Amino acid sequence: MDNKAPVTVIGLGLMGQALAGAFLKAGHPTIVWNRTAAKADQLVAEGARLASAVGDALQASSLTIVCVTDYQAMRELLGASDIDLNGTMLLNLTSGNSAQAREAARWTEQRGARYLDGAIMAIPPAIGTAEAVILHSGPQSDFEAHKSTLDALGTVTYLGADHGLASLYDGAGLTMMWSVLNAWLHGTAMLRTAGVDAVTYAPFARQIAAGVAEWLPGYAEQIDSGSFPAEVSALEGDARTMAHLIEESEALGVNAELPKLIKAMADRSIAAGHGAEQYPVLIEEFGKP
Amino acid sequence: MDNKAPVTVIGLGLMGQALAGAFLKAGHPTIVWNRTAAKADQLVAEGARLASAVGDALQASSLTIVCVTDYQAMRELLGASDIDLNGTMLLNLTSGNSAQAREAARWTEQRGARYLDGAIMAIPPAIGTAEAVILHSGPQSDFEAHKSTLDALGTVTYLGADHGLASLYDGAGLTMMWSVLNAWLHGTAMLRTAGVDAVTYAPFARQIAAGVAEWLPGYAEQIDSGSFPAEVSALEGDARTMAHLIEESEALGVNAELPKLIKAMADRSIAAGHGAEQYPVLIEEFGKP
Repeated sequence: MDNKAPVTVIGLGLMGQALAGAFLKAGHPTIVWNRTAAKADQLVAEGARLASAVGDALQASSLTIVCVTDYQAMRELLGASDIDLNGTMLLNLTSGNSAQAREAARWTEQRGARYLDGAIMAIPPAIGTAEAVILHSGPQSDFEAHKSTLDALGTVTYLGADHGLASLYDGAGLTMMWSVLNAWLHGTAMLRTAGVDAVTYAPFARQIAAGVAEWLPGYAEQIDSGSFPAEVSALEGDARTMAHLIEESEALGVNAELPKLIKAMADRSIAAGHGAEQYPVLIEEFGKP
Repeated sequence: MDNKAPVTVIGLGLMGQALAGAFLKAGHPTIVWNRTAAKADQLVAEGARLASAVGDALQASSLTIVCVTDYQAMRELLGASDIDLNGTMLLNLTSGNSAQAREAARWTEQRGARYLDGAIMAIPPAIGTAEAVILHSGPQSDFEAHKSTLDALGTVTYLGADHGLASLYDGAGLTMMWSVLNAWLHGTAMLRTAGVDAVTYAPFARQIAAGVAEWLPGYAEQIDSGSFPAEVSALEGDARTMAHLIEESEALGVNAELPKLIKAMADRSIAAGHGAEQYPVLIEEFGKP
């Protein structure tokens, strides 16, 4: 059996407990710390070592994972006068935005730490399975140095050197998640007016979502080239169909805000002179405040 | 070789021409009619027969497909005093909404016709390939009787006896299509602020959309049972993440309307007392005007 690298987990909320549990299960010596020590009881019973203080926890491993309430809480914990971050390797999996991630990188690096920022696209029970996608950004060599340890957590992905990337991809992914769910709910509401069960409609929605997902890499080439020839359809024709969809939603008595937003974005792009171009030209509207 | 059934196509816009072309290619004797006869020239060169009048076109086949500008145009064509619909079998692939489809069914059936309504989820060049999905609703026996002919058009699907279903599924599918595209555009706009190309981001968006699509059948069971236990996450926690997503979008200078709509729907459901339940409980908000 390999000698697995020790790893420290600071912050033992539901997610932190899941992270530490996954390391233990994979055979890593696991050091934990939490403000309320009792939250470590179960992990200690499973073989974790409870550090006596944050400083001890940081010194105990060549990799420390921080998973606390927010970036402010991280700063308070690691900024205490008795803490020496010099030479530590931090991976911050605390939820936040890209500006906070970049600022935390500056703040920790000024104190001599190496810093990776991450985002967890999973719920605690999925940690330790391939379903848990964990995004990382920061210096690639630091990610590579610890990847074999991080593999214990799920599907770990490296995005790039910009510390803000994990948060940006996470936000973009959440927007996709809620958009697919909302479109499905809108369709389900429409079909229910005709007595169609949600279970009957769902496979159709699944097929459309998965099918449209396949178009994205090709459409992305239009965006990067800045050229949007109407190979499939032109925005002006799309907008007419959108108008019918709003009318249909209103006639059925279901919420029409989603098709209205869809049409408002298209109308703005048409007003900007893009009516004869293809849908991805809307990137110009999405890129504006 | 089988004797293929003759089929009539009325209306030779780009879509009607594609439909007639696919029947010809599959070996069906194909009768066509269009108000402007010249639009039939190419099809006639390929072997179609141009009918001298709508009435002749209707009598020439046991199945007539109508694909005109709108339902009003269909009514004007088929309602002329010299037209006898008695005993005809109509499949209307004209674009419209569910109320128009149901009304057209009543109108044609009163005149002795059998009537199927359909919706084409494809662009004209895709007609005749498996990629072209064509939805049908109306009496199942009529669909079954002509399915072997309709197979020439693409992937043909039967949805149910309610003539409005093809239009409803079509509208629901379009909402999904535009929602996936808009979520991808929003994410692309976010990532572009960090210098990430659309082509670099697209595979991630594709993976999330396809992954979330897989959840829909399970979530649909919650809707049909009317019970929304927070197995994965509770709406209240989701709404906090949505607030961060709006802040992030605004801070990046990208359009925030999509995350704002996402949060507005969730907030309404929380205000109605569903904060501790799971996302699909939003069906109640989507089902309201």
